Parts: sequence; structure tokens; C-alpha cells
Amino acid sequence: MANVLRNSAKFGFSGVLSQLSIHSRHGRECVSPCFSLQQRNNSTSPKIKVDLDNSTGVAVLRMQSPPVNSLSLDFLTEFCINLEKLEMDKSCRGLIITSTLSKVFSAGLDIMEMYGKSPERCGEFWKAVQEMWLKLYGSNMATIAAINGSSPAGGCLMSIGCDYRIMADNPRYSIGLNETQLGIVAPFWFKDTLVNTVGNRAAELSLELGLLYSAPDALKIGLVDQLVPEDQVLSTAQDTMSKWLAVPDHARQITKSMMRKQTIDKLLSNSLQTMPDRSPSP
Amino acid sequence: MANVLRNSAKFGFSGVLSQLSIHSRHGRECVSPCFSLQQRNNSTSPKIKVDLDNSTGVAVLRMQSPPVNSLSLDFLTEFCINLEKLEMDKSCRGLIITSTLSKVFSAGLDIMEMYGKSPERCGEFWKAVQEMWLKLYGSNMATIAAINGSSPAGGCLMSIGCDYRIMADNPRYSIGLNETQLGIVAPFWFKDTLVNTVGNRAAELSLELGLLYSAPDALKIGLVDQLVPEDQVLSTAQDTMSKWLAVPDHARQITKSMMRKQTIDKLLSNSLQTMPDRSPSP
Amino acid sequence: MANVLRNSAKFGFSGVLSQLSIHSRHGRECVSPCFSLQQRNNSTSPKIKVDLDNSTGVAVLRMQSPPVNSLSLDFLTEFCINLEKLEMDKSCRGLIITSTLSKVFSAGLDIMEMYGKSPERCGEFWKAVQEMWLKLYGSNMATIAAINGSSPAGGCLMSIGCDYRIMADNPRYSIGLNETQLGIVAPFWFKDTLVNTVGNRAAELSLELGLLYSAPDALKIGLVDQLVPEDQVLSTAQDTMSKWLAVPDHARQITKSMMRKQTIDKLLSNSLQTMPDRSPSP
Repeated sequence: MANVLRNSAKFGFSGVLSQLSIHSRHGRECVSPCFSLQQRNNSTSPKIKVDLDNSTGVAVLRMQSPPVNSLSLDFLTEFCINLEKLEMDKSCRGLIITSTLSKVFSAGLDIMEMYGKSPERCGEFWKAVQEMWLKLYGSNMATIAAINGSSPAGGCLMSIGCDYRIMADNPRYSIGLNETQLGIVAPFWFKDTLVNTVGNRAAELSLELGLLYSAPDALKIGLVDQLVPEDQVLSTAQDTMSKWLAVPDHARQITKSMMRKQTIDKLLSNSLQTMPDRSPSP
Repeated sequence: MANVLRNSAKFGFSGVLSQLSIHSRHGRECVSPCFSLQQRNNSTSPKIKVDLDNSTGVAVLRMQSPPVNSLSLDFLTEFCINLEKLEMDKSCRGLIITSTLSKVFSAGLDIMEMYGKSPERCGEFWKAVQEMWLKLYGSNMATIAAINGSSPAGGCLMSIGCDYRIMADNPRYSIGLNETQLGIVAPFWFKDTLVNTVGNRAAELSLELGLLYSAPDALKIGLVDQLVPEDQVLSTAQDTMSKWLAVPDHARQITKSMMRKQTIDKLLSNSLQTMPDRSPSP
Repeated sequence: MANVLRNSAKFGFSGVLSQLSIHSRHGRECVSPCFSLQQRNNSTSPKIKVDLDNSTGVAVLRMQSPPVNSLSLDFLTEFCINLEKLEMDKSCRGLIITSTLSKVFSAGLDIMEMYGKSPERCGEFWKAVQEMWLKLYGSNMATIAAINGSSPAGGCLMSIGCDYRIMADNPRYSIGLNETQLGIVAPFWFKDTLVNTVGNRAAELSLELGLLYSAPDALKIGLVDQLVPEDQVLSTAQDTMSKWLAVPDHARQITKSMMRKQTIDKLLSNSLQTMPDRSPSP
């Protein structure tokens, strides 16, 4: 399988998945809406760096897990722990999520977490994906995604889990829930979050075709809220955050909950259905 | 009544309906969201022609029932049988629906099926309308409407039942659920399909006023996805279909079902409510 | 408290509310999504003037309660009585709502109805707000808001309760559900009506930030349907109304009910939840 992965890396993610599913057809393994490749990193160097500015109440969470900020179990666990810490910290009112890597925000779920893994491990991984989304989509903090690179699949999910999305104005960067292209199915809560963001029809087209949108196209359909030059993504996020924090927290939080509670409750009450469907390769 | 019909044909469909409802006020007849006029055709010449290209897996279904491809019971029965055959045919993965007639895709439900007919016959007709929509909206095939002419009422329903809509870029061609203009009410599943396609507010305006949109206006509100010169409608549909078929079938099918199942289930569980309201003429 | 109000009037509504909530923190008073200030007017001069043109079947309801058409209990009661009269009048088919005041359509709920008032009085007031919305959103008449001035908070609710919105093309006039800015939370049925009008994402942004939109921006997100020069707002509403009344009433009414019934029923079945959350000042 190592060979398969090495070889298919040349062909992009779609090729990888096709070949992987051939090889894993007989095993009891789960397939996920991811596509990034990453060597398991056993080092203990943190994959996430958080800086909280106590004067403004704004934390910047930097994803720094080369090569592409894959959402592995380790990454997600670290992400959730950091999110929880900030959520409990009364001095933190706003969260900006960005990447330290060049050209990529996050390439999504780590494919290596799902192939050749035991169902238990697989379940643990999916629980972590859900936890990430639940914490982010329901956060009491004002959350802004400073998308300074491509953000497919799980990276897109993380982005649309925030309150606001600012993306680098670079047509080579793309964002979208492209799982279907890879022969897999985005879970219903990915779908619900997308529908909430871009509406039913754009979500339908987007998911049936597994579309990745260039930054300008993403703006057109409302998948991101604003494009700025690449070197101004973070500073614009900081400026925008100060507008969000000018709104009384309590009223904003209750309003946010009113908007998002139904979607969150649906996942919570459907936890048994959240394992995505296994779909054979074409 | 034949006289009424002959006379009112001059005034367009709205006039027809007004006069018809005067004449049918006392009978127990159902009124439908249709407006096309068509002599009952007792010939056995097929109203639909299907060509399946086995090399591409794409079928083209041509509606060829002059003068306006009215959706009569005969037409709908033939349509559904053809759809079912293609659905069962493993070699068919994509369906393009178009018209052989000049200037019209389909003028919608055949009014003659509902006036002066027994409730039983009327029920049979409405069952066929539902069946057409259920089969189309829930099809496992990728479906594209190649709308090469006007497509009001039931013709619009057929179009928005597909996955994608390409329309001739001709401002004289119109599309829309214009039932209200005719003094009748679009059934809830017409409404649901429209809301899924253009969103709640555009659907509300559209249905309350019974609006017909010119091709350019239809594109603006998202009622169709693309306009192309009239002579390129079918070829563009073929090109577009090849993009749809590049997506793994199984993932696309499950995703489509995830998007549309709720709307389909609503009709299935409300079959008693599907007879449209009778509304008096103004 | 009179001093507080006088002083804070200088700082705009937000300042008012912040200070008011400090002063009322200990009492059992309800806070509402309003912000207009108005001396209680004990005179019996009517706050609303209705002219029904029997030749056209169109009534014009003019709000004439200086300085800003605040929705006080008296105002709402008068409004509802007039609405009910017109609703019962078979000769009235269309309703245009506008303001006689310069620069303001309605500044929303009257803040004085909620501070320092008994829970009973407060409940009576909220019942009147709901009644206004229920009657308007569910009206059998075709309803057009001729928005000839600013229309924040409750004024916006009134506008989006109509079938169609024509606003003066003046960038200094604004409209929106800006409650959150004031530290308070718009009730769920305000939210539902906004989502129905501009879609989920625009409503989410709008409500989380308590945004007021200038007339041109309101048009962009679909919060109003049309902008016209200020002196043509009413005449355009009259012209537009004649198009609405060209649609058969009965079909339009059933269609409208089909579109809005679910939202209305949700309020009716949740009447115990309709008291908005009390939110502390920041």
C-alpha cells in the first residue's frame, strides 16, 4: 500500500482514492471525505499555535502541521483542546483561524486515518471530526476563518463552521466540499452547514459534482464573505473581528445559537448515522 | 365547450381558464395547474423518442407530441415507462430531456384531462403527474433539461425535476410556475421543488404572482443554470453531461438522494393532499 | 430615568439601551428589540389614517404618529383594528402601508412600553406586536410596504411582513433587524421572517451583527424588492398593486398561505416562548 500511495500522489487526490478503494475493498475499513496525504508524524511538536491578545480578547490559532495541515486524529485532538481552552477563557471573545503554511489553509481529513485502521480507531477519528465541527459551529466566540490558501473538503468544513470567511484573492486557491469527486459522500452535517451558507441549490450542485471553487467563484456563490490580497488576510481578519466584538457578546451569542441550534441538534441526535457511506470506486 | 375552447384559444391560456371555469363551475371536476390545449390524439404514434448511446451511457429523450408537448395522461404514461426502462438499464447513466418541437419545450399539463372528466380519471391523471416528478426528481441518472423553447407550468416542473437546466438564449422563450395567474394553485410539491431551486423569496414572489420568466430573467433568479444559443442547447447538454458522468455514480447518487429525499418523502407521505385546490375564477 | 432617556437620546439608540439596562437590571422588566423613543401620547388623535379607494379596492394605511411612528401599545392596537377592518371588508383587496412622516417609515417598537412596566403590561404589549405580525404576514390582502424613510427593528419587521417592499432610493435611509447591536435578541419569528426573505446566510450575518442596511444595500441582499425616487414611492406602490390585483385573489391567497403557514404556525404553537430573552448590557 505504501507503493500505491507513493505512486498515486503523482495523480492527485482522486487517483489516490480510486486506487485506495481497489486495495481496501475487502477489508472492513471506513472511507472518509478527505484526500490529503500525510506521513504519520510521531513527533510531539505542536501542530497548532495559539496566541491570545489579552488587550483585545482575540486569539489567533495558527495551524502549522506540514505539509498541508491534514486533519489527523492527533491534529483534531490538539485543535479541540485548544478550542475548549479558549472557550473557557473569559478573556477570549474572538478567534481567528489561519495557517502558517504556504498556499494551504487545510487540505482536509487525513486519509491515513481511515485506511487499514480498525473500526474502533476509525470511530475515534470520526468522533474527533464531529467534535471539531460541533465546538466551532456552536462556539460562543466570534470566529473568523482567515483562509490564506486552499481549503478543500474538511478544510472547507472548518471554514464554514466559522462566523465569517476572509480568503486570499488568488484564483489558484480553491475551496469546496469536493468529496463526491473522490467517490465518497459528504456526511449530512457537512451538507447542512453548506446549505446554511450558500443555500440549497448552490449546495446541491456543489455536492453532486464535488466542486472546488476558485477564490473568486467562492465569493460569487457566498462560500466566502470577502477576498483580500494574500498579505492582508490576517490583518483584515483582525479589523473585521473588532467590528464583531463591538456587538454585545451576550446578544450575539444567543442570536448565533438561534441560527445554528437546529443544525447542531440534528448531528447530536443522529450520532449513529454520522459514519459516511462507503462508496465503491467507479 | 368545443366552441369555448376554439374561441378562447385566441386569447391565450388565461382566457381559456377563465371561461372554462365559468362553464365547469357546477360540475364535480378538478382543476389543474396546466394550460395547454391539445386535441386528444387517438393515434398510437409515440409521443416520446428515446436514443441511448451505449458508448457514452447517455440517453436523449425527445418529446415529440405536437403542437406543444402537452402532458396528457397518455404522454405521461409513455414518459414514465421510458424513464423506468432507462433507470433499470445499467448501461444508461445520464438522461437529457429535450423537445423536437419548434419554440416549445413543454406547455405543461393537458387541460383536457381535467375538465369534464370523472374524478376517477382525474385522479389517474394526477397520479401520473406525481409519478413523472417522483421518477425524475429521484432518478439515479444524471438528468439535464435541454430547454429549447418555452416551458411554463408543468413544463417548468419537469425542468426543475432535473439536475441541471440549459435553456435557449432567447428572450421570447419563457419558463415558470405560472399557475396562480390562471386562477389555480400549484401543488405543494411544485412549490417545494421551486423553493429548492431558487430559494424561498424568489419562489414566493414567483408563485404569488404566477410569474413567467424570460430566459435571461430565469437565469438571473437561478431557475435555469445556463443560457446558450438555440442551436447549441443539445450539444452543450451533451458536453455538460460528460462532466456529470466524470463524477463517480455511486457517490453522486447518494449525495443527490441526501439533497432530495426529504422533499420526495413529503409527497409520498401526503398523497391524499396532492389534489390541487379548486379555485373559483376571478 | 427621565434624565437617562433625555441624555442618552443624544447618543442614539444603542447608548439608550445600554444605560437603560443598567438601570433596570434589578427589576422584573422585559427588554424588547426596539429602540425608538417617544413620549407617551395621551391624546386621542389617531396614529393611523386609512383611505380605501372603492374603485380600485386598494387601501392606503398612513402611519402618522410623530416623531418616528414608534410601535407603542396604542399604536399597535390602532394598527390591528384597522387591519382587521380592511381584512373583513370584501371591497378591499390590496393594502399599501406608508408613513406621513419625513425620513422615517417606523423606528420600531416603543422602548417606553417595556421599561418600568409591569409584566402584565409588558405581556400585553408583546401580544400586540405578535398580533400585528400575524395579521400582516397572514393577510389575505395583497400588501405592499411603501418605505419612504428609515425602517429599523420593528419597522423592518412590519416591512418584511408585507408581500412586496418598495423603498425610497436614498442611501441615508436604512432598514434592518438591528436588535443585536442594542444588546437584545430578535425573537425567533423576527428571525424566521428574515430568513424567508433574504435566505439563511444573509439573515445570520444580519442578525449576529445587528446590521442596518442602506437602501441600496438592502436591495442587494433582497431585503427590499425595488428602489424608486423618494417622491415616487407611493405612486409606484399603486402601480405595482394593480399588477398584484390582476392575479386572481383566491389562487394568490391560497398560494400565499402555502408559503407562509408553517412560519405562522410556529409562532402560534410557541406563544409561551415569544417573550424575547433578556440580555445584559455589555
